Amino acid sequence: MSIYRPQIGTPLAELDTPCMIVDLDALEHNFDVIADLYADSPTKMREHAKNIKTPIILHKQIRAGGTMGGICTAKTAEAEVMVEGGLTDILITSQVVAPDKLARVAALSKIADIKLSVDSDGPLNELSRISSEMGADVGVVLEVDTSMGRGGVRAIERGVELAKMTNDLPGVTFRGVMSHQSLAAGADNDRESRFIEGRRYIQMCLDVKDAIEAEGISVDIVSTGETWTYDVAPEIPGVDEVQGGTYALMATQADYMDAFQYAVKVLSTVISTPESNVAVGDVGYRAMTSPGGVLPRVDGIVGVEVESLEADVIVLRSDGEMPLDVGDQFLLLSAQQDIMVNRWDQFVAVRNGKVEAVWPILARGCHH
Amino acid sequence: MSIYRPQIGTPLAELDTPCMIVDLDALEHNFDVIADLYADSPTKMREHAKNIKTPIILHKQIRAGGTMGGICTAKTAEAEVMVEGGLTDILITSQVVAPDKLARVAALSKIADIKLSVDSDGPLNELSRISSEMGADVGVVLEVDTSMGRGGVRAIERGVELAKMTNDLPGVTFRGVMSHQSLAAGADNDRESRFIEGRRYIQMCLDVKDAIEAEGISVDIVSTGETWTYDVAPEIPGVDEVQGGTYALMATQADYMDAFQYAVKVLSTVISTPESNVAVGDVGYRAMTSPGGVLPRVDGIVGVEVESLEADVIVLRSDGEMPLDVGDQFLLLSAQQDIMVNRWDQFVAVRNGKVEAVWPILARGCHH
Repeated sequence: MSIYRPQIGTPLAELDTPCMIVDLDALEHNFDVIADLYADSPTKMREHAKNIKTPIILHKQIRAGGTMGGICTAKTAEAEVMVEGGLTDILITSQVVAPDKLARVAALSKIADIKLSVDSDGPLNELSRISSEMGADVGVVLEVDTSMGRGGVRAIERGVELAKMTNDLPGVTFRGVMSHQSLAAGADNDRESRFIEGRRYIQMCLDVKDAIEAEGISVDIVSTGETWTYDVAPEIPGVDEVQGGTYALMATQADYMDAFQYAVKVLSTVISTPESNVAVGDVGYRAMTSPGGVLPRVDGIVGVEVESLEADVIVLRSDGEMPLDVGDQFLLLSAQQDIMVNRWDQFVAVRNGKVEAVWPILARGCHH
Repeated sequence: MSIYRPQIGTPLAELDTPCMIVDLDALEHNFDVIADLYADSPTKMREHAKNIKTPIILHKQIRAGGTMGGICTAKTAEAEVMVEGGLTDILITSQVVAPDKLARVAALSKIADIKLSVDSDGPLNELSRISSEMGADVGVVLEVDTSMGRGGVRAIERGVELAKMTNDLPGVTFRGVMSHQSLAAGADNDRESRFIEGRRYIQMCLDVKDAIEAEGISVDIVSTGETWTYDVAPEIPGVDEVQGGTYALMATQADYMDAFQYAVKVLSTVISTPESNVAVGDVGYRAMTSPGGVLPRVDGIVGVEVESLEADVIVLRSDGEMPLDVGDQFLLLSAQQDIMVNRWDQFVAVRNGKVEAVWPILARGCHH
């Protein structure tokens, strides 16, 4: 069994399904939105690779403009794939603590500008020891927890303490602060709400930055925000970078972000029509996702809804006669691509209904 | 970036994390339960490969006993991997309709005993045409919908019609009937409830079999049931095969099935302890799962619960002081492995706390 790889030029209708496609016009539109918005702003995008997992897509945003020239990764192995894929400026946003992984981070820092998120003494000391032994220099970015309730320091004083400690250690260089926000369930997503809430969270990160600078330590990176605040963050003085992820491929969970188009869709074929208003498609939750029970949407067919997502099939129901027959194809929009892209081996990149490229998802399995 | 592959003999404590491990003693226990229960029964296991995706694990059940010598797969590509991995009797449980895939199924039938689930005329005629042109012979198993509301015929007469049609076509041979049941949310899972409900669903499949036999068509396979009815099905005369999946690796969603042990677990390392009763681990929902919001469980640490699963991290909370420090490892039990195993590249097989084998998950990306 070799991985299915369609020929360039194959029309959509002839693709073997299920197939995850990326619409290049939509993707480039999304990248242009960022390029335009951030063109004259000191705030720049640092696109998150965690959901995209594919160097070429990240290069496309960097070439389109609006970025600071680098990206985020969530994992060490993801950072390795990205450096091997030609990215030169990487912020690893989760803490790394195992000595062998810290050595990998230090090794990477010899061939790219690597910054690691840190929030506690032990790993910081270990990183310093390993990095200096290897003659390396790893950037340290202090994570501040502003709403997620996961990693990140939770008090200004603790942040200042770690910044000072970093400043005194060999093999590491203090570079700045970062935070990520949580999109509280039920929060309003209109621009004003995002402005008020987003600003409040980001301000907590800026407060830590100010306290560190007051100690005479230079903070050259404030990396914060996400798709939810992409248009809010540039209006907050002091925000250098926005860690946007969802905007590039888009997902129905962020459908209020109407500046962006759906770039990633899943193509499926009807394999059964057991009732006159029911159709069963050949893709299930092993390949897609239903986070918290939110189902995918059928793209562009009025009156047809997703009734359920099973392990390997999807069930559609129409409000009248089902317009889809056995063998017909349809496109699905995912509620979330964060949990979906790494289930696939490749993006099939499509323009004007034909395959223009096939991009392997190189960091797909890179959980460690 | 090459995929991490631990050396044989590596102790659990030295594994790079996150790491999906399979405990060989538990796995073999689960296989022995089936071997013992089905030893003297005409009903045999046809283990489902859809969640396991790895030929060697399926071979282990066949060698342990209690099976009919073959397996199920959900997808064509999965069947290809399994035939290449030495399995010789395969029932593909989802309908296949695209001509290129039907040709792949027919090609496979020249090197293994392949049976395909069918529920409508169009694909059946197409399969017959393609298979006979190729000089192949594909087994046809009629799917009967008994509770899932997805593919499968929904009336006895329709089943009889398709069986007769199959009987008259070249390149295909009618082999039998199959069904799958749905475990209704909130249904009781004690043995008596499973017996009553399971029997009711399975009887619908047997009714179709009887009607087909009454037409003088031989039905040599009745393939039905699942883990939920593994101990019920052998008591129903006429059931030849049980399509069990979950029992092999187990998952907390099936914890009432106390005959089986948890064989698959995920090893994680604490990367942050931002509060005295909070620990953050290095695995998230990209590698694990939270179907319908059901979180993983921490294995064997009293008073420590999973608070949330994020994209790349997990947050644990203890009812007193957190017993885990930064750098400590812990094991997680998944609510469901159906949606989890195909996110990983390999099983790290462990016995007595040491790596005994590393098994690539060969059918991981085989969605088509």
